[in-house]
Formats: sequence, C-alpha cells, structure tokens
Amino acid sequence: MPELRREPVTGRWVVIATERAKRPESFAQERRKPSKSRANCPFCYGNEAMTPPEVLAFRPEGAEPNSSGWRVRVVPNKFPAFTIKDEQKIRVSATSIMSNSEQVNEQEELGIYSHKPALGIHEVIISSSDHFKSLALLTNDEVELVIEAYCSRLLAVKDDPMVQHLLIIVNHGNEAGASLEHPHSQLFGMPMIPPVMAEEINCASSYFGKKGRCIFCDILTEELKSGERVISESEHFLSFSPYAARQPFETWIVPKKHLANFEFISLEEKKDFAFILKDTLSRVYKGLNDPPYNFYIHTSPKKIDTRKFYHWHVEIFPKLSIQAGFEMGSGIMINVTSPEESTKFLRNL
Amino acid sequence: MPELRREPVTGRWVVIATERAKRPESFAQERRKPSKSRANCPFCYGNEAMTPPEVLAFRPEGAEPNSSGWRVRVVPNKFPAFTIKDEQKIRVSATSIMSNSEQVNEQEELGIYSHKPALGIHEVIISSSDHFKSLALLTNDEVELVIEAYCSRLLAVKDDPMVQHLLIIVNHGNEAGASLEHPHSQLFGMPMIPPVMAEEINCASSYFGKKGRCIFCDILTEELKSGERVISESEHFLSFSPYAARQPFETWIVPKKHLANFEFISLEEKKDFAFILKDTLSRVYKGLNDPPYNFYIHTSPKKIDTRKFYHWHVEIFPKLSIQAGFEMGSGIMINVTSPEESTKFLRNL
Repeated sequence: MPELRREPVTGRWVVIATERAKRPESFAQERRKPSKSRANCPFCYGNEAMTPPEVLAFRPEGAEPNSSGWRVRVVPNKFPAFTIKDEQKIRVSATSIMSNSEQVNEQEELGIYSHKPALGIHEVIISSSDHFKSLALLTNDEVELVIEAYCSRLLAVKDDPMVQHLLIIVNHGNEAGASLEHPHSQLFGMPMIPPVMAEEINCASSYFGKKGRCIFCDILTEELKSGERVISESEHFLSFSPYAARQPFETWIVPKKHLANFEFISLEEKKDFAFILKDTLSRVYKGLNDPPYNFYIHTSPKKIDTRKFYHWHVEIFPKLSIQAGFEMGSGIMINVTSPEESTKFLRNL
Repeated sequence: MPELRREPVTGRWVVIATERAKRPESFAQERRKPSKSRANCPFCYGNEAMTPPEVLAFRPEGAEPNSSGWRVRVVPNKFPAFTIKDEQKIRVSATSIMSNSEQVNEQEELGIYSHKPALGIHEVIISSSDHFKSLALLTNDEVELVIEAYCSRLLAVKDDPMVQHLLIIVNHGNEAGASLEHPHSQLFGMPMIPPVMAEEINCASSYFGKKGRCIFCDILTEELKSGERVISESEHFLSFSPYAARQPFETWIVPKKHLANFEFISLEEKKDFAFILKDTLSRVYKGLNDPPYNFYIHTSPKKIDTRKFYHWHVEIFPKLSIQAGFEMGSGIMINVTSPEESTKFLRNL
C-alpha cells in the first residue's frame, strides 16, 4: 500500500507508492515512443476484464456490466496512489459508498518523521471506446457524457469519510505523464486538503474578508472588460489566459455564475461546459499540433463552507516548457510567452 | 524588460520574460535533439565575444579579460529573467557592485492586478572550457574552482539593494531545461524572497521556536542514526535521499556543521564540498546513464537573521519523472521509487 510521508521542514506530504515502482535500472533505458496501437489496451472494447470491475458505465439498458458497448466507463485505478483499506475493497460500486471507518488516520511517528497510509480513492474515467480520440476530437455530446461521469462520481464518493478533497485531472500524451495512450481522466480522493487547494481557499477567503467579493468573480469582470486575454466565451463560461500565466498557453475556464462546487452545475451548464472545454482543447490541438497537456478541475473541498468566496474552475497547461532548477528551487515560474500573445494565437484560429 | 506579475488568487509572483519568447508556432515543431557539437558554442574557447563581458574569470595572471585560457568564467545571462536597470548596465563587474537605487520597486496597480519590473541579477557560471564534461566528469580540483566562483559571486552581489535573495542552480541536459549544452550553472538574484525559500525559512524558524534546535541538524542526526538513506559521507558533509523524497533519486547534500549561508564556508569545507558533490553526481551519472538533472543550493536570504535556525544545503533531482496533472493541481508529489531503494542503488555503485 502506498504511504504518505511528511517532509519535516516544510510539512509537505508526499505519496510513496512503491507498488508501481520501476526498477532503478530501467530509468537508465531510453524512453520508448508511444505505441499508437490499441493492442492490449485495457481501455478498449473487449479488454474490460483487464481493469478492476467498473464503478460506473454509460451503456445500453440491460447490457451486462463490464461487457463492451459502453460509451463512458469508470474503473478503479489498477495502480492507485490512494487506496481504500483492504477489507473495504470488496464493496466498491457506483451506488454503495465505501463503509466508514473511525481508525483510518493511523499516523505513525518515527522520531522527527511521521507517516500514515495513503487512504483514499483513485479512479479512471475512460472518455470513449475510441483509442485515438482525445476530448478535442470527440463530439460535444460525447464530451458532455464525460462531464456527466465526472459529476456522477464526485457526488457518489463525496460522503466517504476517508476523503477530504476530490480532484479530477487529465494527463494527455506521454510527455505530460499519461502512462496509457487511450484517452482518460482520473479522479483522486485524498485524505487531506492538498496544499495548492488550501492556498487557494485561504487566499480567496482572505480576499472575501477584505473586499466582500469573490476574487474569481472579480477576475471575470476584469477579463471581460479588458478582453485582451479572452480566448473564447460561451453563455455560461469564459476561457482565457490568466494575467500571471505560469506557462505558455496556460488557459483557465471559469463559469460566469458564482458557484463553489463543479459537481453542482445544472444540466444546461454541463452542455455549455462540454462546448467550451472541447472548443478550448480543439484550439490547443489545432494550433499547437496536438501537444501533450495537463488539466485539472478545482472544486471546493467538501467539509468547508466556501460558498461565499470560492469559485470552481479549470486550469489547462499544454506541456511546452520545462520546470527546471530555478522554478523548483524558488517556486517562481518563468514563462517565456506572455498570456496576451498566447491568447492572440489561440483566439484567431 | 521582463516583468513580475502577481497571481491575484494566491499572491504568487510570476516572471513574464518575453525577450526570450519563442514564436507560438515553434511550439508545434518537433523537439530537436541535442547537437553534441561545440560549433558556435558561446561558452567554448575562442567564442568569448559571443557572451556579454565577463564579471569574473579564473585565468592566468596578466591574461586579457574575455580572452581564452580561463578555467571558470562568469558572464551575465544574455537573455536574463531578472535584469538590472538599463542605466546601470554599464557598471557590472566583479568588484564594483551595481549602484543602489531607491526607486526600484515601481509596482503598478491595474485594477486587481499589479506588476513591477523584474529587477535583479542573472549570471552564468561556465564550469570549464570542456564542452563535454559536466561536473561529474571534472576533477575534484576543477569542481572546487566552480564552487569558488559560486561563493565569490554570491559575496560580490550580496549587498546589491535590488536583491533580496540569491539562488544558484544547475540544469543539466535538454530535458532538464538546459538550453545550452556546454556545462554551466546559473546565479539568480531576485527582488523578493521566493515562496519555496520563505516556506523553508518560516518552517525552520517555527521548529526552532518549539524545540530550540535546527530542523536540518535534527535530520542529520536521524539520518546518521538510521543510515538507511545515506548515499555517501565525507568529513564535513552527508549525501542522502530525504525521508519524504518527492522524486525518484532525489538527493540532498547537507553540511554537518550548522551554518545558514553557503557562501561563508571555509576553504577546507569548499574542498570537501567539491569532493561530495562530484561523488554524488558521479553516482547519478554512472548509475542512471547520465540522466538530465536539476540541482540548487539553498542559502539564507541576506536580510533575515536566520543564523540560529537555518542550514544551507543542496537538493538534487534527476529528471526521471513527470510533474503531471495531479501534482500540479494538488501540490502533492507522487514518487514511484522509495528513497530507501534509491539510496541502495546509488550507494552500492
């Protein structure tokens, strides 16, 4: 089982997940190229038995679970970074939430060090049966189904007592950390509020305390007014490059309506979110020649009432630059392309 | 001139350095392979005129500045992330510090956004005249000269009023962000204490407040006692994989003597530091087949009295894993190799 370790200087928690360890020797080998082949792909039709049993699937009524014919399929990650306790593994399903447990936080102290099991959730959302079509290439309806699956799983695991925070991410392409080629997303349920989220929540709360307004709402107002970083706009969303973009072509999608939790969006907003997400990713795909990218959805942690000051959103990062010694040692990013220039390029496609 | 921009949600500062911008189109091109050639290398003998005039060089007595024959050479970065003001550019040298300036912090507010010029220092330390020899392949004496140059420049620019913090970093290999192949280090002088450093200082100070001891000294004690993460040890230094390593083969070099500032080490310690740095990098080179890597030296910010609680050290990261959506969205790293396993591999070479 993977474990969390606390870096004693900064207090940062790290997951040590030796179950998916490579042999040290294998790091010395040359990087293999992506196979561009669906042979033995566990996410393709016919290979459903290669994954753990599904926890959710959109498939024709009456069809057998874990058979082919599904449109979106959600399965536990075979090599999870966060796991449920062994004795609980039996009862994972879309409807029954993992049983609660009072003694999940068995933190152990070892002198100045401490560690505890990395309990939580790690699932894979397979976008479609098509091995070659990333979100940018799916239809709006297909992307909407993926979003439906995101919301459905977020709501299903929300009350799990092990989980403090839920994060949906997409890694696209080998260089962006996608170990399997078939397009998919991942859902992480963590036993803590992670530092990036904690910082966002604290800062948004402090801004609200001072100004009485949501910082994200204020950003939307500013971006709509200036327009110089707006990539595209729909009825309910704005897609733009943030003022202090950390990387070339960093892009945010922010809902115009103030709402802390992504999983609470309406049916109409889901449809519109599918449109703007596909539109933005298509611009990245076309303009930058299908680059590797990462994106994540920041939604409010479940146990804090952030309704007044937090605002869910998406942050997209095409993988076009390298986080090197300066960025790592300082925490300050160096961006070689201004967000205004990135915007111009993506907007005019 | 590059500028700093503040991300309004988290308060993070970002450098926007459009002077070294790539054309958006060029991001779509395939990544070129390292040339493995010294043609037109600005850091090789004979090409000294291709860099800005040197600010320091170790060369035979009486030799002309900016001629060949040097052993280590330090020049301002041609495309800096932090720059001195234009009118000050004339007077940079090893001995004369940039003139002071009271009005360097011209922060400008634009609604919720604010920005200011990225004033500071960005220099390149060329390790040797050999285009193909990284630190792992130099002799101990040659590495010692590089360390001498680090200390010399840190002391020379320490009193610059623009600079709040100094950071030395090495990017080795294209995939680790080295844009020039010829082995070199970089010195950054920043107009703020960067977040990674601020966090370390705050945490170390708080630990000292509670325990009355330096956290790094306590880590040394713990690591020497257990021994399971010690890669190598010299008279004055310990090289080990930290308990909560964020990446496979992350390695720290920590001096046994409590000292906040790297640049204050003694001659004897410099010699020993050269030995352990080369020893550690040689293990990485041999064991992992000359992987790309980053390292940085964390030394105390100059304007805070951290003598009691801070402890300078080096953090080394072979570039063998990818920071993907989860790490970016959460701030939590997933490490697929335990530090104990990394240690065993590097120690037994």
